[in-house]
Amino acid sequence: MTNLLHPLPDASRGEVFENLLTRPGCRIERIVSLGQVTPPERPYVQPHDEWVLVLAGRAVVEAEGAATALSPGDWLLIPAGAAHRVTFTDPDAPTVWLAVHFG
Amino acid sequence: MTNLLHPLPDASRGEVFENLLTRPGCRIERIVSLGQVTPPERPYVQPHDEWVLVLAGRAVVEAEGAATALSPGDWLLIPAGAAHRVTFTDPDAPTVWLAVHFG
Repeated sequence: MTNLLHPLPDASRGEVFENLLTRPGCRIERIVSLGQVTPPERPYVQPHDEWVLVLAGRAVVEAEGAATALSPGDWLLIPAGAAHRVTFTDPDAPTVWLAVHFG
Repeated sequence: MTNLLHPLPDASRGEVFENLLTRPGCRIERIVSLGQVTPPERPYVQPHDEWVLVLAGRAVVEAEGAATALSPGDWLLIPAGAAHRVTFTDPDAPTVWLAVHFG
């Protein structure tokens, strides 16, 4: 894959996670969502910082009690240990995320 | 800065480099270009791998003898030690790059 926006995998049956590159201390991943959200009872909690950028689509992330609406170009740093949830992704068009995982 | 696409800095007098986040082994940077190219006599050579993604605009990168045209969503890994040059960026609209520097 050399373009992150097309072609896109079909995410209608579940989010699609693809590793782009892994280096010591750093992993780059593309995620494609289509309406999926994080179950309220199972928030993500990671032992490392994560930087996420929305490349296409629309989403809302709730982290540390604050909800942030994300559109293309918007980025967010999710600190290590912070419980966070994706509470919305557009059900009608793919949301494409770039995630950089540290540590 | 929480959005990488707007507002954009004025790059008409030179490319604008902005550090977004630095962690051990990993640095994320936004670069905005407007027609600038790398002088042929001064190619970039870096001691670390660099991953670049075009978020907006158009560019051509020449690395290890191969020219790659980049449009939004296109990414490229530039290996450590590889001489590389940006041989084109759109002079009429900003080209926005996301660069992840490893090591």
